[in-house]
Amino acid sequence: MPLSQALAYLKDNSDRFLAELEAFLRIPSVSTTAEHKDDIARAANWVADNLRAIGARKVAVYPTAGHPVVYGELPATRENAPTVLVYGHYDVQPAEPLELWENPPFEPTVRGERLYARGATDMKGQVMASLKAVEAAAHAGLPVNVKFVIEGEEEIGSPDLAGFIAEHKDLLAADVCLNPDSGMLGADWPTITYALRGLAYFELRVYGPEHDLHSGIYGGVVHNPAQALAELIAGMHDENGRITLPGFYDRVRPLSDEERKALAKLPFDPTAFYLKQTGVPQLWGEPEYTPIERTGARPTLEINGLYSGFIEEGAKTVIPSYAMAKISCRLVPDQDPDEVAGQLKAYLKAHAPATIRWELDVMAGAPASVTDIHTPAVKALAKAMEDTWGTQPFYRREGGSIPVVGQMQQILGLDSVLTGFGLPDGNLHAPNENLHLPTWRKGMEALVRFFFAL
Amino acid sequence: MPLSQALAYLKDNSDRFLAELEAFLRIPSVSTTAEHKDDIARAANWVADNLRAIGARKVAVYPTAGHPVVYGELPATRENAPTVLVYGHYDVQPAEPLELWENPPFEPTVRGERLYARGATDMKGQVMASLKAVEAAAHAGLPVNVKFVIEGEEEIGSPDLAGFIAEHKDLLAADVCLNPDSGMLGADWPTITYALRGLAYFELRVYGPEHDLHSGIYGGVVHNPAQALAELIAGMHDENGRITLPGFYDRVRPLSDEERKALAKLPFDPTAFYLKQTGVPQLWGEPEYTPIERTGARPTLEINGLYSGFIEEGAKTVIPSYAMAKISCRLVPDQDPDEVAGQLKAYLKAHAPATIRWELDVMAGAPASVTDIHTPAVKALAKAMEDTWGTQPFYRREGGSIPVVGQMQQILGLDSVLTGFGLPDGNLHAPNENLHLPTWRKGMEALVRFFFAL
Repeated sequence: MPLSQALAYLKDNSDRFLAELEAFLRIPSVSTTAEHKDDIARAANWVADNLRAIGARKVAVYPTAGHPVVYGELPATRENAPTVLVYGHYDVQPAEPLELWENPPFEPTVRGERLYARGATDMKGQVMASLKAVEAAAHAGLPVNVKFVIEGEEEIGSPDLAGFIAEHKDLLAADVCLNPDSGMLGADWPTITYALRGLAYFELRVYGPEHDLHSGIYGGVVHNPAQALAELIAGMHDENGRITLPGFYDRVRPLSDEERKALAKLPFDPTAFYLKQTGVPQLWGEPEYTPIERTGARPTLEINGLYSGFIEEGAKTVIPSYAMAKISCRLVPDQDPDEVAGQLKAYLKAHAPATIRWELDVMAGAPASVTDIHTPAVKALAKAMEDTWGTQPFYRREGGSIPVVGQMQQILGLDSVLTGFGLPDGNLHAPNENLHLPTWRKGMEALVRFFFAL
Repeated sequence: MPLSQALAYLKDNSDRFLAELEAFLRIPSVSTTAEHKDDIARAANWVADNLRAIGARKVAVYPTAGHPVVYGELPATRENAPTVLVYGHYDVQPAEPLELWENPPFEPTVRGERLYARGATDMKGQVMASLKAVEAAAHAGLPVNVKFVIEGEEEIGSPDLAGFIAEHKDLLAADVCLNPDSGMLGADWPTITYALRGLAYFELRVYGPEHDLHSGIYGGVVHNPAQALAELIAGMHDENGRITLPGFYDRVRPLSDEERKALAKLPFDPTAFYLKQTGVPQLWGEPEYTPIERTGARPTLEINGLYSGFIEEGAKTVIPSYAMAKISCRLVPDQDPDEVAGQLKAYLKAHAPATIRWELDVMAGAPASVTDIHTPAVKALAKAMEDTWGTQPFYRREGGSIPVVGQMQQILGLDSVLTGFGLPDGNLHAPNENLHLPTWRKGMEALVRFFFAL
């Protein structure tokens, strides 16, 4: 039987698949800093080579205004088979702070059941799972047409992907998009994600004096820009954790009672879960929503970075000339990232004092998305997961943002099936990012079953 | 006449004095970071060598728990001459941000009438002015006994100087301390400082999750530590710029009507002056006090540095695990730095939410000081300045902190005469620090006259 033949191939080649993933992880393909431009190119070529090795055709590395997109396709061995467009990204988040890693982030290291490296879970591990599941299925006779589109700008908001998709509509034509850039609720809890939050990312700079000043000589007559920035940030939430930008909640779709009930059906206690995962002394957020609702169905505003003045060891008595904050909002349906940028500007215009100057850079934006869970593809994946784990998958709203899901819908009319085989303690975007290898191997198995079930 | 002989010597050796200052400025003797430990030692030895070169005796580099203190003395050529203890420091502030300097900070460069380098004004220029004024006076027959005590920890709050002074009371015995670590209100406005603010310096760290988190997955359930820090900082001032730490103003000595009148007598418009010096769009601070009162006679709380999360180029969607602020207070009589540390702790205990953890490091402290302007030494300096500039000096309260002034008073019973020859646009503690050379040369002349007038 082709399915069992493909599953046996997975088992037989398990060690080689891990070695290939490690080679992929050794390339520090950080997309946000210019210094890694060569590594980005190496990672793109590495993916193209791997596609050729598993028998893909029309393999090409397409340049964009930013980082290239890799494409390749494999035909089904039967007539009239459906076409799956597999999405992935080969870029990774920066690895800083480096001193908190137990192994160097680009020297993948297995400890226990986990593989530690930047990108292990997000998402080189998932890209490899897809490539190797297709390789295994193809070994037994590929039951579906598969197209791969692997981009290099996901971690910076996919600024050039929409343009690429629009220019290559025919090449990318498919019946469904498989997007394994989501994750699982736990090693025994296969998960299908049906909603994602959108993203709006900003850099706010507050300018005070023309240059740093001696705090003894000038302290008392100038508004310290670090203080002014802190005052502006503090005002962006009220005492209940509600965001104060004017109009911010106007378009937020209210949660129905039915959906609140469904979200409450979880195999664990979410408060205990989040306390354990984060190590914070107490959870925080809008008291009228549960933690699961707050991370999945409510918008947020986070400070991702903060800088001003002297931050080295020791003391320097300076009034800084400027202060900077990186600020991002996770958005829910039907918020619009451009509108949110306007709301932040309106807040700043209303609250920034005349004692300072400010500038706001709007860096990236993507709307939220909700997908239909009653499609044949979602049903096929659910069946594949049940056959692999022996339990039905959970359906969840995820707090993260995957701009491509909206783009696939808008430009290609394609629904995405969202899954992935990383775990909540995989330290995505954090030091000691890791991949639970038994779950990763089950994920490949589930993907093989999915291709045969479509 | 010895005085005119000494003044002629100043003129004749003007180029050499500048070359010596440049050599001194080339040593990056930054006291706050461990990496400059060798440079600190070089700077101390450089001062000792210069003392030997001008004929000083008992020259020694005394080790302390931190950076060494340099001592040397020159005897008067007459009997029963008074003894002047000249204070100085050979350490400098860090030079960062380096990219804002027009020349490298430790490659002194003359442009126009100014010499640009870290420490040019604060205070290697002043140390050299004192050494070279004594050299010139000694060439004509030194009319006073002079002792030099040049420390290496002023920019980090002089933690080891009080111990050194207490251990060497006999060596340092004198009639008055000359402290040229203050400055002038303008090139034509010689200035004597009669009051200094004290200092209390802190590092506040706010801890949230155990490691950085993905803001999509966890945004909405944890209190972002950068936001929590901003909220704590924002609450440290009220809307009138008044500091909210409990009891902060309890000991602040009210300004008398007489002193307010005296402080209002200035040769310039202070608002226009501060706007020009700082480039801010509008001044800030307690509305019931004038700018001069706010910088000289009122305490402040400043944010000297701010750090959290991702501050590189680009975007990273992270909830930082911690946030840090460097905070310092300028204190006025009769505030106590230890008490202020307790007030900041009390504020944090009252206002820090249970959703985060915090730590406060108390880094340095010194009380404020006020000196008597009716002493013979102050009168001698005033006469020397009038003879040099053709105008009487201004008496002012300065916003900066010089802990040694209080220590000289408490341990040695010595009043300090506070002056200096840097200008307000000398960019102390900032990029492009500079020394106005014509004023520096007049300063040496005034010091020579001062020694002969004592």
